[in-house]
Order: sequence, then C-alpha cells, then structure tokens
Amino acid sequence: MNFQYIEALQLLERTPDTLTQLLSGLPLEWLRCNEGNESWNSLEVVAHLIECEKKNWIPRIQSILSSHENQDFPPFDRYSHLGKEMELDSLLQKFKEKRQESLLTLNTIVKQDSDFERTGIHPEFGSVTLRQLLSTWVVHDLTHLNQITRVLAKRYQEDVGPWKAYLSILK
Amino acid sequence: MNFQYIEALQLLERTPDTLTQLLSGLPLEWLRCNEGNESWNSLEVVAHLIECEKKNWIPRIQSILSSHENQDFPPFDRYSHLGKEMELDSLLQKFKEKRQESLLTLNTIVKQDSDFERTGIHPEFGSVTLRQLLSTWVVHDLTHLNQITRVLAKRYQEDVGPWKAYLSILK
Repeated sequence: MNFQYIEALQLLERTPDTLTQLLSGLPLEWLRCNEGNESWNSLEVVAHLIECEKKNWIPRIQSILSSHENQDFPPFDRYSHLGKEMELDSLLQKFKEKRQESLLTLNTIVKQDSDFERTGIHPEFGSVTLRQLLSTWVVHDLTHLNQITRVLAKRYQEDVGPWKAYLSILK
Repeated sequence: MNFQYIEALQLLERTPDTLTQLLSGLPLEWLRCNEGNESWNSLEVVAHLIECEKKNWIPRIQSILSSHENQDFPPFDRYSHLGKEMELDSLLQKFKEKRQESLLTLNTIVKQDSDFERTGIHPEFGSVTLRQLLSTWVVHDLTHLNQITRVLAKRYQEDVGPWKAYLSILK
C-alpha cells in the first residue's frame, strides 16, 4: 500500500491547472474530437469532473465521516453532465473552484489518521474505507487525464501513417 | 486525415508546460515510481523527450527537407537518456528550451504546404512523409503524457481496493 494523505492532496490540487495547461486555447477541432460513438470529448470529461466534485467525492466522504457508521453512499449519476452547454474556459474555472472547495472541506472534516479506516457502503462493492475512496479520487483524476491524452492522440491515428504500429495509444 | 500544421504546433508548444504543471513540486515517491522491471518513471520519460528533441524530430525533419530527396534518417537511440543524473526541474527547463528551439527551427525550414508531402527513409518503414512525421511527433507527446498519468495511477493500484475493477488505467 502506498497511500499517503499529503501526497494524495498534492496530486488532487494540481489537476485543474494541468487540464488548463493541456487544453485552454486549443481550437474546437481538438476539444470536440472523441473516440467515436457515445465516447466523451475533452469538454465532456471536464464537465464530468465538475459533477464528481459536486455529487460524488465530498458527499461520499461526508457520508463516511458522519456520526452514523456504515451509511449507504448518496446516489451519483455519472452521465448527469451530458447535454449541457459547455465552454472550455468556464468549465476549467468551475472545476478549479469546486476542487479548491472540496479540498478545503476535506481538510476540515478529516481529523485524525484513524479516519482513513472508517467505512461507508458503496452500492455495488459494499463496505469501503475512506483510504480506498481517497486513493480512488486520485486515480480517477489520472484516469481522465489519461483519457484526454488518448482522445487527442486518436485524432491523428491515420495521419501518422506506418508509425501507427508503434504507437500503442492509438490501439 | 486530420493533420493541420497550425493545430499540430498548438499541441507541441504546450507539452513542456503541461508536464511542469503535472509534475513540478511532487515528491520523489511520485516521481520515481514506475510500472515495474525496466519500465520508465516520470523523470526518465522527460529525459527521453529531451533526447528526442536533440536527436530525433528536428534531425529527421531536416533530413526530409534537405536538398537530397529520400535520405535515410539519422540514427536515434531511444535508450540514450538512461543512467544519467536527473533532477526534475532542470529536466523540465531543458525540455522547454529544446522544444522552443525545435519549433523555431521548424518554422524556419518549413516553407510551403507541399513540404508536408516530401519524404525521407525510415530505417524500418521505408518512405515516410513530413506530414506523417509531424503527426507522429504530436502523438508521441500525448503518448508520454498518457504514460506518466498511468505510471502515477498504478502507485495506488492496491490502495483503491474494490474500485480497481472499474479503473481500466490500472490494468
């Protein structure tokens, strides 16, 4: 196990600025490309991250750290961000604000190391610890950064010609 | 085909700052983790990108755009960065400088749209166009950003507990 609270925060706090550096100023040809069918473009990924700040991470953490042990997590709809108006810089700004609020709240409600072993009830997995949830929050950020780099790369999957054979991101 | 020169430049010019935003200030526990065995950590990935600026992209582009048609590409050793001293912020600064130099050189030597169809000889693929090489340069940047997010995520592959089943980046 590698989770350390301070190191997890160091990753969580930088994601909005990393996304801004990667995406802000790109033309819509880059921002609106996706992996085909119902897959998400970069705008939709950022919108999803905002919804997770509002409805997923902190509500679940609060559920774990409330006075009632082993509560069911509040519901989260992972498609709730779709079909809304999306302008990149306002999405990025909103994500940055929401993430800052989340981390301020987190620092207020986590009181001691033993809190990381407290549990809540995930609708599918059953009992999970705060440690597992915070680790998942970090990996979820990295998953969506990973997804955006893949989505952007695939825009050039034919343009690279024979190099496609060596670029595993295009497979 | 989607390649557009200006749009490709927009991605290439932002990679050093994206990497800086993602990595600078992280402790060595994050920077030195890898995917096991001989796989690269984040420091080694940045060092590799510097070597590509020095020995791969611009030398190959110059080879294509030289007066002699269909030249063999100059050799490139993709492991040449390993085993050297590595300090993150100096690597990031070096990469940023080299990338700026590369893009200045590129803008000097690309003269007209028809240049994108000029060819050089890749040691394995044979004839490739400048268009394919520039597209590959973009995808190569995104590949290594993708790799770094995956390497960081895998540090928590056990810490996430049952969520591992849903986090495809960990597989």
